[in-house]
Amino acid sequence: MDDMDVDALCGLLLAARQLKQVPRTGWAMRGVPNGESVADHSFGVAFLALVLSEMIAPPVDRARVVAIALIHDLPEGVTGDLPTPAMVHFPPDAKHTAELAVLKTLLNGFPWAEQWQTWWQEFEFGSTVEGRLVRDADRLDMLLQAYVYEQTLGNRLLDEFWPQPDDGPFEFHISRRICEALMNRRAAQCRGAVRW
Amino acid sequence: MDDMDVDALCGLLLAARQLKQVPRTGWAMRGVPNGESVADHSFGVAFLALVLSEMIAPPVDRARVVAIALIHDLPEGVTGDLPTPAMVHFPPDAKHTAELAVLKTLLNGFPWAEQWQTWWQEFEFGSTVEGRLVRDADRLDMLLQAYVYEQTLGNRLLDEFWPQPDDGPFEFHISRRICEALMNRRAAQCRGAVRW
Amino acid sequence: MDDMDVDALCGLLLAARQLKQVPRTGWAMRGVPNGESVADHSFGVAFLALVLSEMIAPPVDRARVVAIALIHDLPEGVTGDLPTPAMVHFPPDAKHTAELAVLKTLLNGFPWAEQWQTWWQEFEFGSTVEGRLVRDADRLDMLLQAYVYEQTLGNRLLDEFWPQPDDGPFEFHISRRICEALMNRRAAQCRGAVRW
Amino acid sequence: MDDMDVDALCGLLLAARQLKQVPRTGWAMRGVPNGESVADHSFGVAFLALVLSEMIAPPVDRARVVAIALIHDLPEGVTGDLPTPAMVHFPPDAKHTAELAVLKTLLNGFPWAEQWQTWWQEFEFGSTVEGRLVRDADRLDMLLQAYVYEQTLGNRLLDEFWPQPDDGPFEFHISRRICEALMNRRAAQCRGAVRW
Amino acid sequence: MDDMDVDALCGLLLAARQLKQVPRTGWAMRGVPNGESVADHSFGVAFLALVLSEMIAPPVDRARVVAIALIHDLPEGVTGDLPTPAMVHFPPDAKHTAELAVLKTLLNGFPWAEQWQTWWQEFEFGSTVEGRLVRDADRLDMLLQAYVYEQTLGNRLLDEFWPQPDDGPFEFHISRRICEALMNRRAAQCRGAVRW
Amino acid sequence: MDDMDVDALCGLLLAARQLKQVPRTGWAMRGVPNGESVADHSFGVAFLALVLSEMIAPPVDRARVVAIALIHDLPEGVTGDLPTPAMVHFPPDAKHTAELAVLKTLLNGFPWAEQWQTWWQEFEFGSTVEGRLVRDADRLDMLLQAYVYEQTLGNRLLDEFWPQPDDGPFEFHISRRICEALMNRRAAQCRGAVRW
Repeated sequence: MDDMDVDALCGLLLAARQLKQVPRTGWAMRGVPNGESVADHSFGVAFLALVLSEMIAPPVDRARVVAIALIHDLPEGVTGDLPTPAMVHFPPDAKHTAELAVLKTLLNGFPWAEQWQTWWQEFEFGSTVEGRLVRDADRLDMLLQAYVYEQTLGNRLLDEFWPQPDDGPFEFHISRRICEALMNRRAAQCRGAVRW
Repeated sequence: MDDMDVDALCGLLLAARQLKQVPRTGWAMRGVPNGESVADHSFGVAFLALVLSEMIAPPVDRARVVAIALIHDLPEGVTGDLPTPAMVHFPPDAKHTAELAVLKTLLNGFPWAEQWQTWWQEFEFGSTVEGRLVRDADRLDMLLQAYVYEQTLGNRLLDEFWPQPDDGPFEFHISRRICEALMNRRAAQCRGAVRW
Repeated sequence: MDDMDVDALCGLLLAARQLKQVPRTGWAMRGVPNGESVADHSFGVAFLALVLSEMIAPPVDRARVVAIALIHDLPEGVTGDLPTPAMVHFPPDAKHTAELAVLKTLLNGFPWAEQWQTWWQEFEFGSTVEGRLVRDADRLDMLLQAYVYEQTLGNRLLDEFWPQPDDGPFEFHISRRICEALMNRRAAQCRGAVRW
Repeated sequence: MDDMDVDALCGLLLAARQLKQVPRTGWAMRGVPNGESVADHSFGVAFLALVLSEMIAPPVDRARVVAIALIHDLPEGVTGDLPTPAMVHFPPDAKHTAELAVLKTLLNGFPWAEQWQTWWQEFEFGSTVEGRLVRDADRLDMLLQAYVYEQTLGNRLLDEFWPQPDDGPFEFHISRRICEALMNRRAAQCRGAVRW
Repeated sequence: MDDMDVDALCGLLLAARQLKQVPRTGWAMRGVPNGESVADHSFGVAFLALVLSEMIAPPVDRARVVAIALIHDLPEGVTGDLPTPAMVHFPPDAKHTAELAVLKTLLNGFPWAEQWQTWWQEFEFGSTVEGRLVRDADRLDMLLQAYVYEQTLGNRLLDEFWPQPDDGPFEFHISRRICEALMNRRAAQCRGAVRW
Repeated sequence: MDDMDVDALCGLLLAARQLKQVPRTGWAMRGVPNGESVADHSFGVAFLALVLSEMIAPPVDRARVVAIALIHDLPEGVTGDLPTPAMVHFPPDAKHTAELAVLKTLLNGFPWAEQWQTWWQEFEFGSTVEGRLVRDADRLDMLLQAYVYEQTLGNRLLDEFWPQPDDGPFEFHISRRICEALMNRRAAQCRGAVRW
């Protein structure tokens, strides 16, 4: 690899590092001060994906699972974290298309570009079991964080994040059970039995 | 006005208040900690527009100038502040269209909806002298803020915000002169003669 | 306008920009982390004043209303936001006198100095309908913010901000109705029906 | 001590604790993000005063020195930290009078009220050697903090905090020497030899 | 004192100043945003110790009490604030030994080194009445802060900080009574009667 | 998996999520405001490890590499991030032993406990090629972050983070080249040619 390539690699690393500085807009818009970064969230998703991949049968490709988790929000270093309520006002594919274009720009010239784009699409479309597992992890990390903000900041605007009974955003049985366990903790807090 | 309408009005006021909580992404992406909010910026633009409107001949419609300044970023309470480098990856009109749709939703049912949309468009298209004056104010507030972050945080990533000599982003002569005066201060700081 | 004047103008603009950096002390003293700035508040007041001016009959001078709102806290860039509980310990006019002196210093030499001082006094004394409308907006913005801090931070120290039934700090009927609508939302939250 | 008195004592302790929440305005106005609190500063002054009192001959009343340092900014929990540039616009004694009134209110009814007021006046007027020593400590803590903000934030607006050569704000020889040692470090940093 | 010694003194002062920058980990780990610094806490402890020393009979050595309070967490500028739940996993004396070593390094060469180490040990072991009084103050400052975070942030994870009825972490009767008064306020808040 | 186990799993997930709240002490102690969290860093390390694993020959076990990166700082959710300068004052193995004990407690009862402990030890001891690759990533993420704080905050206290020429903290050739490319960027910034 020649020097120009290594410098380009530096550029990619700095672009990924940007995620440490991009706030998750969902929390900011609900008044959470100094909320988590997209990198915080990406760590949470990757950790959850690692745990879930230990519990799924038949086994999944763990390397792929974790790689997908690490890159699933990579374009947000450039685009920021577009708030969910804004989506409906953009053309249906605008966000996906813009993020894919950013991803291609970021990865342009690296030998692993095609592989990573494929992985990213698996998350976007849920087209493989690994992609769907990371989608579950993405949801669960958001719920863990909502739970913590409710307990530590008394934030009352996070109700809409929680699924309804029999609402099924999860692909895997274990994800549903983790969600239920968390909702049980949440209900217990409301009744006064506080535990971390 | 019946009770339901007053409650809807409350909703509009809370939506505008959201701007206090939306960070300006340009600064965040360059590592400014606890940077200004969109409401901070909107105040700066409105104040600048008020000052500029005192100095323009022939006189402009001051009420319209300030109103345009106050609402020019109103949709960002819902969409967030989409970073400039992301724009190129969205369809040419996607941001404008989304923001207009948000604006219509926010103003829906209020007697002044049409008037405000017209004002907002004047800013977007620079189609009136008042709209163009607020565009100048929008630029100048950004430069004032860049100057302050350079002086107070030693941030070295803000060079690209500053115009080139003979680069002409400004409509009005006075705007250009304010920009020059600020650039003179900036140059003086670099030579060591520090003044606020 | 000669160069020295433009540089002085720069000084005024930087002085106004300081409001982005002055925290509203009322919130800080009640433990709100990273609370709004005076510029955030000034934006809120100006936006509210713009809305109220659409709803008042007979019509008010909208340009004056919004200009008053934008400058009503201008001296606080120099004096800071003196906390309300401190007032009683200063001579009755000390704050007003100090702020007026600061305002005169800031505006010294600009052609609009006298006009702006007049506007500022209209707010201070409520001596015109436009000044009184901005006073209502000042109160309402504070209540909107108190409401949000209660919902998003679970802050329990803001009771004293809310008016008593039949307590009349407002000049205009529509202001009273907005206040009531907000208090209804607040009461509903306490009973568990959460809405933004 | 009866229950009512203990509850009043609680009130005093909470009032002193407020200093943890009052930002030092001098830094905030120069763009320092998340700057130190008045309690941070009071700790710094008390620590410095303790050190200085080890080095002064003839010996000073150490208990009095440290007590003065701990209470010298106590009223700021109620009044906030009035910025220096604002002072000139208030009547000459307004700040002192207001702070004394606050202090009397806070201490009202406690057996040590008179003693503490005396101590506080010793600082205000520099009327005892102990009071003057804390005044030196107050200045030195400010310089230590200015030095750190210059090194860690690249803030270029703090020049005015530093004394001129032969400028004599200090009472004690050792204070002057500490100031010089700090200024030597500062000068060395500017030449590139960085040390903490 | 020669120049080298004064520069070394500067080093000690900067090391103490570090406490302004070390967050108290107990709060951070329970989700408090921008929580107090160790310097904030040290101020609180010293102030409390000063108050308690006014109320104890027979009289204590006030200078020693306050000095102990100011230095009791001094090593944390180097070691940080090791979280309580981590302690159990370190060798029994590891924290004490490390902090003592840091203290010795910081004080090395100063004439007061031995005296200060003795004071610090009095706090660590509660071996003198003054040391035990500061231990009470240390506990009480933590409770005051827990109370404030519960009231201002709605944080529900601080239950474990509060002592059980008849649980006796306090040495002095007055400390116990202050604790009770605070717990009474806390209980009243829960029932809705909010007071600061 | 029965309900109790799922609840225990929730506990593990919340413990990992704590890393979002633990500040990296190295930055805090050098005055970086709102510095990165340990989760931010862990994301950076995992991303870097993923990139490095694309460039190493012969191929490494990518799943193991990324898993090691995700868990390498897991115990810090309980112990906090012990500052480097504190280490020398603890018994040689105290940190490792405490972290291992925390890890065992966190993983107790989960089928993957033994596997994860093995991975964590590979990082600690650099006993496998995968463990050594993550060690390189750990170093590089720190340098990327130091570079960004220097550029965005003008922080001058980070010199010691940078390796000397021919200083060899890296295991892999590509790591050294990335480090050099970053140091070239850093040197260019100092000469004025600013680029992100």
